[in-house]
Amino acid sequence: MKELNIAIAGLGVVGSEVARIITKEAEMLASQAGMRLQLVAVSARSNRDRGFLMHGIDFVADAAQLAARKEVDIVVELIGGAEGVALDLCRSALINGKHVVSANKAMIAHHGHELALCAEEQDVQLSFEAAVAGGIPAIKLLREGLSANRIEQVTGILNGTCNYILTEMTQTGRSFADVLAEAQAKGYAEAEPSFDVDGIDAAHKLAILAAIAYGQKIDFDQVQIAGIRAISDIDIGFAADLGYVIKLLGNAVRGAVPGVQPCLVAQDSQLAKIDGALNAVAYSGSPVQSVVCTGPGAGDGPTASAVLADIIDIARGHRAYPFGRPVATLEDKANRREIAPGRYYLRMMVEDQIGVLNAVTAILRDHDISVESMLQKGRSDNAPVHLVLTTHATKKQAVEAACDSLRAASFIAGDILALPIMAGE
Amino acid sequence: MKELNIAIAGLGVVGSEVARIITKEAEMLASQAGMRLQLVAVSARSNRDRGFLMHGIDFVADAAQLAARKEVDIVVELIGGAEGVALDLCRSALINGKHVVSANKAMIAHHGHELALCAEEQDVQLSFEAAVAGGIPAIKLLREGLSANRIEQVTGILNGTCNYILTEMTQTGRSFADVLAEAQAKGYAEAEPSFDVDGIDAAHKLAILAAIAYGQKIDFDQVQIAGIRAISDIDIGFAADLGYVIKLLGNAVRGAVPGVQPCLVAQDSQLAKIDGALNAVAYSGSPVQSVVCTGPGAGDGPTASAVLADIIDIARGHRAYPFGRPVATLEDKANRREIAPGRYYLRMMVEDQIGVLNAVTAILRDHDISVESMLQKGRSDNAPVHLVLTTHATKKQAVEAACDSLRAASFIAGDILALPIMAGE
Repeated sequence: MKELNIAIAGLGVVGSEVARIITKEAEMLASQAGMRLQLVAVSARSNRDRGFLMHGIDFVADAAQLAARKEVDIVVELIGGAEGVALDLCRSALINGKHVVSANKAMIAHHGHELALCAEEQDVQLSFEAAVAGGIPAIKLLREGLSANRIEQVTGILNGTCNYILTEMTQTGRSFADVLAEAQAKGYAEAEPSFDVDGIDAAHKLAILAAIAYGQKIDFDQVQIAGIRAISDIDIGFAADLGYVIKLLGNAVRGAVPGVQPCLVAQDSQLAKIDGALNAVAYSGSPVQSVVCTGPGAGDGPTASAVLADIIDIARGHRAYPFGRPVATLEDKANRREIAPGRYYLRMMVEDQIGVLNAVTAILRDHDISVESMLQKGRSDNAPVHLVLTTHATKKQAVEAACDSLRAASFIAGDILALPIMAGE
Repeated sequence: MKELNIAIAGLGVVGSEVARIITKEAEMLASQAGMRLQLVAVSARSNRDRGFLMHGIDFVADAAQLAARKEVDIVVELIGGAEGVALDLCRSALINGKHVVSANKAMIAHHGHELALCAEEQDVQLSFEAAVAGGIPAIKLLREGLSANRIEQVTGILNGTCNYILTEMTQTGRSFADVLAEAQAKGYAEAEPSFDVDGIDAAHKLAILAAIAYGQKIDFDQVQIAGIRAISDIDIGFAADLGYVIKLLGNAVRGAVPGVQPCLVAQDSQLAKIDGALNAVAYSGSPVQSVVCTGPGAGDGPTASAVLADIIDIARGHRAYPFGRPVATLEDKANRREIAPGRYYLRMMVEDQIGVLNAVTAILRDHDISVESMLQKGRSDNAPVHLVLTTHATKKQAVEAACDSLRAASFIAGDILALPIMAGE
């Protein structure tokens, strides 16, 4: 039986799990791959025990060396970071004619185009299934399973940390800060949580999916990003009263600017039920209509499942363009049309005095915004109260302009939050 | 650009849709496939207009001829039926060195092993993504996306007609007969509905998934099958009172006999929300944990999406063993262990007289069955009443034996229904 020689760079929880499975499940993997998967070298910061036997496996301190080793067929990059060691390693591995499998969403979002070109020139495979939605084969589903479709929309719950925080807030009524602190204490959220809670991680993944779905050059910078820090328990409560839950969604509609932002999702929709650290991706297009896949969005096991599936595909001789088609045929950033009008949720603090409601609705009217419903909570002794409005279908620009006008008004206390309401299924 | 020549046998709604897309979306498909997909011949019972231009496409009345045509690279079999014309065509196409793409679950369930062997001997591809779960890439997800996993359980809502009927019964409180008649009138159910409502269609699909998941020779005959005819609006109501919905599930646990049967599913579980004609497949295993995919289980568009994805895979040079590994390494029907004990729902009609409850519980006690809850509905004037019990975890054999004893008892009127209650998520 032929052998495929693998080097792993980065032995965190995912790298260690991949190494453990390659060494302990050799028979099962060989029967799937049609080749023996041989772990020949690893690199990490320190050479401590990680739950697999290092017998016959070279340890190198400098990851860059892996790209130069003659016997290595595949370099598995699990270091992380958009640039630096990870990018240098992947670039030189590809140039040296080695296949690269990576779980690095930041690197692919920022440098995927260059790396894909490099892979194509060297006729080797660049795969990154594990970069998007953890254990869900989200890229394979889109690029191969739905290859005959004209995709019209990609929507996803792409960050498990945010989904966990929002789920906890919804189920317990606790505040964002409180739940985040607990998540950090439990190790579910990073000490520096910005990549997650500010939506950047989800935007990396959305950029990758949008590029594949629409055959475009990956362009992280165009993704509009809003995180979940502004979501208060007040919003969660208002949303529930209105029949919705709040989810951080990545959304890429064909031809429109992709965006990551908190959205109101109908309580009885499929995405509303994706709780905790689960991820979900929904693809709509023709002729398939709509396919939704859910699963664990992170963790050593699910991520290792995706990394190993990429390796097995390479062993099986399945070659695929990283973004679904030759780099030369990927479209440059297209002219982006406006997002279609939709309903919005607006929440503000207003002074509790006569005439305020009238003044608010006047500003909305002046921006051509039609109010659908209105809720008010909290009373009073002349303290500001929460006012929530939902609108009929409205252009995004009109909502933004109205928010600016409202912010400038004397009777508004504190900031204004505007969230899209996802169209029902 | 190279060309891939396709022949389609069977121009029903799916065949016509595949032909329409190949002829009308030629550019898009070519950019995905890296080859021009050329429809060169079709066969059907009559040569009437089906929404695509027949210019340059040969029409042949006898499907068998397609297998012999020199220029044909892929035969797409959309005739249906486990044997007969469909099987003859696929067999001879493979023997003649042509790839075969089929949506024919009955044929694959009964003759998939022989056909896979044939494909392997001729070194051509046999693909049948469209045979399982319509637009959901269920086979690709399992065979490639989760290729590194030891799968422990495959569960699915695999028949859209049954799911539609059960959903309607749940939402409207109507009877099975009533909803079936309406579904037939609307064209959602066949005039002869047995394949659907008796669970045979779902069993075909489950047999295919189980063979791939566990690397076994496909064996339709071992699948235990119960359909939905026995489910009454009474059961739907009782299930709702208990916090469940009734779904027809296919379920294949590693090492256990696969089965298709109506089950009680907790109202807040993911599968409970899969309504109407949707399908769902859930794969559990290690290291991925659990992945669930939902989408349209039938219809011309979704099925065409799956057929075309198979064709594009062939054009891309992606070759896969039909059942995930070489035929020679597929395991023969393994010794099947018993299904693990689980909770059950029991519904019976009992005479409304003193001492009956005591007699029922005595029979259950004698079979080592522990009762969890009990509900009674309907009264009385000495007419029989419905009695529903749920049990704690119980062996299947004990439930079957208890049902036999109950059926023999004088105070039982009518049949007894026993349904498994799915373990919570």
